[in-house]
Amino acid sequence: MERLFTSNLKLGIIAGGQLGKMLIQEASRWDITTLVMDPEENCPAGSIATHSIVGSPQNYEDVYNFGKKVDVLTFELENVNVEALRRLKAEGLCIAPDPDVLELIQDKGLQKQLYSQKGFPTAPFKLYEDKQALLQDMATGVLTLPFVQKLRKGGYDGRGVAVIRTQDDVATMLEGPCLVEDLVDLHKEIAVIAARNIQGDVRSFPVVEMAFDPKANLVEKLICPAELDVALAVQAQEIAEGLVRELNMVGVLAVEFFLDAKGELLVNEVAPRPHNSGHHTIESVITSQYEQHLRCVLGLPLGSTRLKMPAVMLNLLGEPGYAGPVRYEGVAQSMALEGVKVHLYGKKYTRPMRKMGHVTIIAPTLEAALEKADQVKDWIKVVS
Amino acid sequence: MERLFTSNLKLGIIAGGQLGKMLIQEASRWDITTLVMDPEENCPAGSIATHSIVGSPQNYEDVYNFGKKVDVLTFELENVNVEALRRLKAEGLCIAPDPDVLELIQDKGLQKQLYSQKGFPTAPFKLYEDKQALLQDMATGVLTLPFVQKLRKGGYDGRGVAVIRTQDDVATMLEGPCLVEDLVDLHKEIAVIAARNIQGDVRSFPVVEMAFDPKANLVEKLICPAELDVALAVQAQEIAEGLVRELNMVGVLAVEFFLDAKGELLVNEVAPRPHNSGHHTIESVITSQYEQHLRCVLGLPLGSTRLKMPAVMLNLLGEPGYAGPVRYEGVAQSMALEGVKVHLYGKKYTRPMRKMGHVTIIAPTLEAALEKADQVKDWIKVVS
Repeated sequence: MERLFTSNLKLGIIAGGQLGKMLIQEASRWDITTLVMDPEENCPAGSIATHSIVGSPQNYEDVYNFGKKVDVLTFELENVNVEALRRLKAEGLCIAPDPDVLELIQDKGLQKQLYSQKGFPTAPFKLYEDKQALLQDMATGVLTLPFVQKLRKGGYDGRGVAVIRTQDDVATMLEGPCLVEDLVDLHKEIAVIAARNIQGDVRSFPVVEMAFDPKANLVEKLICPAELDVALAVQAQEIAEGLVRELNMVGVLAVEFFLDAKGELLVNEVAPRPHNSGHHTIESVITSQYEQHLRCVLGLPLGSTRLKMPAVMLNLLGEPGYAGPVRYEGVAQSMALEGVKVHLYGKKYTRPMRKMGHVTIIAPTLEAALEKADQVKDWIKVVS
Repeated sequence: MERLFTSNLKLGIIAGGQLGKMLIQEASRWDITTLVMDPEENCPAGSIATHSIVGSPQNYEDVYNFGKKVDVLTFELENVNVEALRRLKAEGLCIAPDPDVLELIQDKGLQKQLYSQKGFPTAPFKLYEDKQALLQDMATGVLTLPFVQKLRKGGYDGRGVAVIRTQDDVATMLEGPCLVEDLVDLHKEIAVIAARNIQGDVRSFPVVEMAFDPKANLVEKLICPAELDVALAVQAQEIAEGLVRELNMVGVLAVEFFLDAKGELLVNEVAPRPHNSGHHTIESVITSQYEQHLRCVLGLPLGSTRLKMPAVMLNLLGEPGYAGPVRYEGVAQSMALEGVKVHLYGKKYTRPMRKMGHVTIIAPTLEAALEKADQVKDWIKVVS
């Protein structure tokens, strides 16, 4: 890392979506040459990366060849070819987080086993080889409705998950190695991002609350700080910090929790990278999650996670019924409100529910931010 | 501007130094394709611009050809070929600020005439055709020592200015059309950035104080908010807002003031673009000067200039005695302090006093920020 702070450091990022783009926005402040690899030539990060390379994160050759071009390699997604990473690591490349961490987190079954083995609270679960084994457990009464089925690999953004409440839902069950867990009687969902740097220092960000749209059953907005009992907030941060230590990982780890109706925290899942639940840190925290991730992987001291102002974050999703070249309505109107910070990712085409951008609203009080968030949500539409 | 918020807007920026780079960091948040033109292929902005073009801002053909590639054209410096801009404007290109504003500001004589004609306070001055005319006024006793000589065109960062205190200094006088102004009995220097958008709305940022290093006679740090009587702060903001209105310009205008020993404000000079005195706004104000400039030139509503936290800004200058490939010492150590935000511009080579980066220190109180700034100033060295 002797090239750090010399104008000669090459940072590689796999892949080039919005998370990669926001990592580059921070990296560009430190005179770091950025290379991004993504399957799409016109990926969001491509417009500001120093060099943009087309390749598949799952392809051995693509990952290996990309790794040979850089001094430090990191990720905006966990589904990366681990064999190629292991060869690069053996050849001396600085990779963070470690390939072992990615491999573990690629498999939700291994994730759950880690939680239960190491004493992190999580919903009771059982692993299955395939749908048949699961159906057999149902037939014998070992497994009863309702439950949640999750594919062990490949799911994201709600894909790879089936909620099985009734016999009718059984037809929607997914094929493949999976886990089944108890359906949690949910009070709310919260998230904490914890960071660990090369030196082993650990620090977490303030707790975020995901407020759901009851109609669409989707995260409607994220609120920071979460409206939560202080003891629970501290507990969530301690669990997140414990997990990043347990994984021995370098970088930021986003930990999503269920808070159940009995007031108990349960780890839902983790992501070893910057995360949707940390977008607001760009404007509302002294150190953003992106800067913190870079500090971690570059061996720098951790930055302060002190809140500058409360924040609400809205995802800008493609409006149902529109698919085609994107157009954003209501943006200028929203930007007239104090503290409304618009981020558009640079995806050329919209489709229903695609994540096209986000808006962070900062204000001196959370109440003021929530009020403006309702306005912005009414005004901004992602159409074509 | 119907392409704004569609993924199809091309913004051109002349040129690609640190100010252009920080403009692009903001523009990249709004899905804007950025093109930068600079004489140097490896200019700071080049590493994150969508497209980087080599060309001279003073060359007619280069400016004209660059303008034909973009939808909106703006600037990080004022010394641009105005004839090319006029032709582009006649052909329908959206240019902000207007070529007329650039032309006026390229000439410090015209600047001073505007201040005195329109009632903006400024030090008394007189225009001269050349050094000979000036020497003649000295010989006849019309002009007496001490005074300041400024070339009307081409000066920046202290170049093009000669302070003539004694007969010995006369040998250092500059050749060319110039102005002479009274040497102000300086109490302090302050600056205000005012912004005016296409709609004609005007808003200014909090007043900044430039604290000088008495040994080097250089701006050592910038402090925001300035330690200043409120009435004076309001007056400075009103003058800055009045000037941006008077110029009828679109974009941000940085106004530098002298505050003399009698407590009177005098306009020193202005720059119609983001400015060194506004770097701290990235972290310490809800809207940065860069975002505000973009809001202006894109016809968006102005953003809030409310301070999130007090800030101190240090320029990182090339250490005397070093010239060559740059290396930064003490950066990691400084980043361990809460609220220390490092910006390295990406210039490959350092030389004595070259602006290589800056550090903004934000803290809940100005005192805390000042204390940390002293530490950081001791620690960070730009060497080779």
